[in-house]
Amino acid sequence: MIKIGIIMGSNSDWNVMQHAAHFLEQFGVAYEAKVVSAHRTPDLMFEYAKSAKERGLQAIIAGAGGAAHLPGMVASQTTLPVLGVPVPSKYLRGEDSLLSIVQMPKGVPVATFAIGEAGAANAALFAVSLLANQDAELAQKLADFRAKQTEMVLAMDLPAIDL
Amino acid sequence: MIKIGIIMGSNSDWNVMQHAAHFLEQFGVAYEAKVVSAHRTPDLMFEYAKSAKERGLQAIIAGAGGAAHLPGMVASQTTLPVLGVPVPSKYLRGEDSLLSIVQMPKGVPVATFAIGEAGAANAALFAVSLLANQDAELAQKLADFRAKQTEMVLAMDLPAIDL
Amino acid sequence: MIKIGIIMGSNSDWNVMQHAAHFLEQFGVAYEAKVVSAHRTPDLMFEYAKSAKERGLQAIIAGAGGAAHLPGMVASQTTLPVLGVPVPSKYLRGEDSLLSIVQMPKGVPVATFAIGEAGAANAALFAVSLLANQDAELAQKLADFRAKQTEMVLAMDLPAIDL
Amino acid sequence: MIKIGIIMGSNSDWNVMQHAAHFLEQFGVAYEAKVVSAHRTPDLMFEYAKSAKERGLQAIIAGAGGAAHLPGMVASQTTLPVLGVPVPSKYLRGEDSLLSIVQMPKGVPVATFAIGEAGAANAALFAVSLLANQDAELAQKLADFRAKQTEMVLAMDLPAIDL
Amino acid sequence: MIKIGIIMGSNSDWNVMQHAAHFLEQFGVAYEAKVVSAHRTPDLMFEYAKSAKERGLQAIIAGAGGAAHLPGMVASQTTLPVLGVPVPSKYLRGEDSLLSIVQMPKGVPVATFAIGEAGAANAALFAVSLLANQDAELAQKLADFRAKQTEMVLAMDLPAIDL
Amino acid sequence: MIKIGIIMGSNSDWNVMQHAAHFLEQFGVAYEAKVVSAHRTPDLMFEYAKSAKERGLQAIIAGAGGAAHLPGMVASQTTLPVLGVPVPSKYLRGEDSLLSIVQMPKGVPVATFAIGEAGAANAALFAVSLLANQDAELAQKLADFRAKQTEMVLAMDLPAIDL
Amino acid sequence: MIKIGIIMGSNSDWNVMQHAAHFLEQFGVAYEAKVVSAHRTPDLMFEYAKSAKERGLQAIIAGAGGAAHLPGMVASQTTLPVLGVPVPSKYLRGEDSLLSIVQMPKGVPVATFAIGEAGAANAALFAVSLLANQDAELAQKLADFRAKQTEMVLAMDLPAIDL
Amino acid sequence: MIKIGIIMGSNSDWNVMQHAAHFLEQFGVAYEAKVVSAHRTPDLMFEYAKSAKERGLQAIIAGAGGAAHLPGMVASQTTLPVLGVPVPSKYLRGEDSLLSIVQMPKGVPVATFAIGEAGAANAALFAVSLLANQDAELAQKLADFRAKQTEMVLAMDLPAIDL
Repeated sequence: MIKIGIIMGSNSDWNVMQHAAHFLEQFGVAYEAKVVSAHRTPDLMFEYAKSAKERGLQAIIAGAGGAAHLPGMVASQTTLPVLGVPVPSKYLRGEDSLLSIVQMPKGVPVATFAIGEAGAANAALFAVSLLANQDAELAQKLADFRAKQTEMVLAMDLPAIDL
Repeated sequence: MIKIGIIMGSNSDWNVMQHAAHFLEQFGVAYEAKVVSAHRTPDLMFEYAKSAKERGLQAIIAGAGGAAHLPGMVASQTTLPVLGVPVPSKYLRGEDSLLSIVQMPKGVPVATFAIGEAGAANAALFAVSLLANQDAELAQKLADFRAKQTEMVLAMDLPAIDL
Repeated sequence: MIKIGIIMGSNSDWNVMQHAAHFLEQFGVAYEAKVVSAHRTPDLMFEYAKSAKERGLQAIIAGAGGAAHLPGMVASQTTLPVLGVPVPSKYLRGEDSLLSIVQMPKGVPVATFAIGEAGAANAALFAVSLLANQDAELAQKLADFRAKQTEMVLAMDLPAIDL
Repeated sequence: MIKIGIIMGSNSDWNVMQHAAHFLEQFGVAYEAKVVSAHRTPDLMFEYAKSAKERGLQAIIAGAGGAAHLPGMVASQTTLPVLGVPVPSKYLRGEDSLLSIVQMPKGVPVATFAIGEAGAANAALFAVSLLANQDAELAQKLADFRAKQTEMVLAMDLPAIDL
Repeated sequence: MIKIGIIMGSNSDWNVMQHAAHFLEQFGVAYEAKVVSAHRTPDLMFEYAKSAKERGLQAIIAGAGGAAHLPGMVASQTTLPVLGVPVPSKYLRGEDSLLSIVQMPKGVPVATFAIGEAGAANAALFAVSLLANQDAELAQKLADFRAKQTEMVLAMDLPAIDL
Repeated sequence: MIKIGIIMGSNSDWNVMQHAAHFLEQFGVAYEAKVVSAHRTPDLMFEYAKSAKERGLQAIIAGAGGAAHLPGMVASQTTLPVLGVPVPSKYLRGEDSLLSIVQMPKGVPVATFAIGEAGAANAALFAVSLLANQDAELAQKLADFRAKQTEMVLAMDLPAIDL
Repeated sequence: MIKIGIIMGSNSDWNVMQHAAHFLEQFGVAYEAKVVSAHRTPDLMFEYAKSAKERGLQAIIAGAGGAAHLPGMVASQTTLPVLGVPVPSKYLRGEDSLLSIVQMPKGVPVATFAIGEAGAANAALFAVSLLANQDAELAQKLADFRAKQTEMVLAMDLPAIDL
Repeated sequence: MIKIGIIMGSNSDWNVMQHAAHFLEQFGVAYEAKVVSAHRTPDLMFEYAKSAKERGLQAIIAGAGGAAHLPGMVASQTTLPVLGVPVPSKYLRGEDSLLSIVQMPKGVPVATFAIGEAGAANAALFAVSLLANQDAELAQKLADFRAKQTEMVLAMDLPAIDL
């Protein structure tokens, strides 16, 4: 059963948001990925948000850029955890996206992650950590991932100075 | 008949948004003022936006602070002109509000005004200018307002230096 | 008869501002496009602004970058709706243009849109929405445009992950 | 059993972080609140983070200001969900806190919320939403909270203009 | 004969701009101080700028806040040196004023000074330095001012620590 | 006789600062251009500043990037007009350079211009305007330059839309 | 013998800089504190910097605000370690001070600390750490200070929620 | 014996951090360079920091980007001088890195340098200046380096204008 929904305002955001999909796949977490635009498909967005819980989703990862309203508006229509990813914008490099997502008013939370690819990847890893609270196997996979990540850093060599 | 709707996310925004109401009253433009929250009353917001045109509104002035989604989401559900007013936020003084409102994606415009009272007042004056395109009397009032405003500046004296 | 004037400070702004022209053409709205510089042709700018209303214009779209004074100064000489487009600047990427346009003082409004192409396009769409208030056919075109835009998003597919 | 840990770098952060505690209490979620400083009690911080999962915590809410390292460093030592709250700083009003918390590198996520009280409150509400995925009663409470919040907004009146 | 014109957009700017007047008085430089608003008295502004040179002015000090167009627009209508002072704005503390003044396009210069009182004072001192190029007595006064200023700093004592 | 000194912290700033030199040449104003570094040749800088007036210079144009101390430190050692040009920096695109130059304390002014080429060009044009106060021929050249600039803008055509 | 020099541009900076003095006293490190202004006493500044090493100073702590040139210019005239403290400025709250100090070009380093009191205190603690490299007793004092600081945090209680 | 440790969060930071290594080599200062990640190898980081003093290190240069916690967390576990280098981040160009490093709370200092290569180089030069306090030969080398650097600037020529 699909546990995590990944949505984004345009297929041009996929370049960033596929990093979330990639990590969910790596952990074997069933997900769906869709284009849902706050401004261009607002009714679809509300339907998506309102039905997400009964469809069995455990969390929604929403990526958007510029005046990034998708994560916050989805959060307004569901009590599921909503994870927001600021997609870099053309001129302000995601500073607008970040503020539009993170500065939610008291009462309707959006968990916000870093601008761009790192944020998309981390939203997925965070979603895994949520699920892992009730899934020992997944918790083990996450611990293994972290251990492997540590090993990779420990194995890093520095090349000769090349100026 | 009510021509302009003024909406805002909370009654705490009224301090700023009443400057819009004040100017509409001064010009004798019928308006309504309501609390409509993007995040806390999303269904009401969509109903408001969707029904605005058939109710005869000519424009909607929407004020919001922080992750300010109200103007853009209203714009997503109506083809009426939507005028956005960035309400100052507690810590970032409206810089977040401004970017959340003005950086709309191609296809769904929000006309944005200055942060705070000046922006609320100017949104109203702009709404008057829209209506004035089809209303010679209102156009004259607007011209008179501008002329009077000019006179007030011309009459300004500077006091003695007082350091 | 020409309904909308598009002006900009230099022909180098055309790259951005042609997005406004494109949308007006798409909606069959008669417009003119001209180079009018606040700083290098100030007299022309004032003549343009002062005569716009009597020439039958319904709104002026003004694009400028850096210390972007064109929209605000045009607004000082007309009661027509003025729509400002922040053109990206070389080093500050339009942050200066945005603030120079949007932070107008109480009394002289400029409706401001997003930095760059999206802002130019949206200024045109907003101008269409103004005209549509008095023009049922145009209103229908705008509704159709929005519907088509929604359909395009609904039809968007996401490719396979490619990292 | 304690489900949520609230930690902060100093008791001076309590002014902000008590908003998280308040909401957890309101929902009947057992929590603990402690001062744990990344820079002044780093060993305690690591012990806290490393033992949190086996102590049965389901999530950690960490608030910090300025060079806000607490949330990210706790996240480096646990696979539990970590929720970060940017506490406003004296001169940069939390802009530094926000960036220090949200811009985590790929691999170690911190879910970030708004600067200040709103962020603290929302981190708690988000923690409730996590727990509610496995707790129908809590899910109902959260839905009720949201409904009541909506009602409060719907009941808001606007006073007379007072300029 | 009046050598320096000090203009500002509103008498509320006098609080800042009187620091310029104060220093001109201190140096015995004849000046005039007036309210001239770019947006509310644009025609007066152009007349002022166009006639300034023939009236014998040697430089114009212009202060403005927010979308601060006064210095740049005056510069567009005169070849006299124009000195711009960013007046602090309510919410963005003069960051908007600064960018609106300093980021002038190639061809029409505005010499810009610091935000607020220091900038107003320094614009006056800079105007004195311009005049001093052709006025040995004034040059001596300026050198004396600087020497006295140095002495004042040299005489500064530090009190006991008081924490 | 050399009237204007152009100095910069490194020959890598010449790319920007040659725009100042170019305009001075165009107006037939004698100038010198030198590398003088605040941080790497501080003694030279002070000698340059202290001797500038007696060498007959009328103004100094100083360009610098990053922690841009050259204009302000030169100003501390001369009563000549000092014109500062913020050279774009690698990572912060000149925002650091601008603030380091423009935010001078009361008592020691630096006239600041736009970031980059436009600022360098305008510093030269401003220097010309200073000299033109006492030189009717130069004043005429400056008026001619402005007139020609206006004509160039008036002659600008816009090409066809090309999206 | 005096080991550390504390300098600042004005006695109004003492409010911040006394935090450095306080910590040096607490550690029994001999210091001097003086007003030395980059812009108003440039010659004194150079003498101070040039003679510091032969006078036996081991490091210089320099605080300045706005266009904060003092630390960098002192560094240009000595090979001693220079520690810079950004003093908060009136309108930009020290953001200008920070960038003016930290963005030094390659070749002339300034070690920069946080804006305001915390930065002043930390500059002193850092100076202590420098001296402690060659002074076992001071190293012990520093370790004790840290231990005590840790204990203070460990002893912090949180009061009851008070909203 | 190794005197200086250079650490960084990833081998991708080496591009920047090798500038530190390069300068230490140039001065003949023994150093080690390692990848130590705050978030991915937190235990290694603490071991590194805790053992640094007894291993004879005199200072640690730590480079990190984004939510840059490495310098501050190392500083929390050692009383050695810690020098922080903000590595440029992908979207915010190091502004986040800078604030995450420099805004340390009172009690645990990190000496911060410029964003990028210049900062890495200067951290090394600063480390040399620390060691030079107790090493006359190194002090001489540093003085020679500075003198040579001055000569290089004095020898810089400016090419012909090429626009």
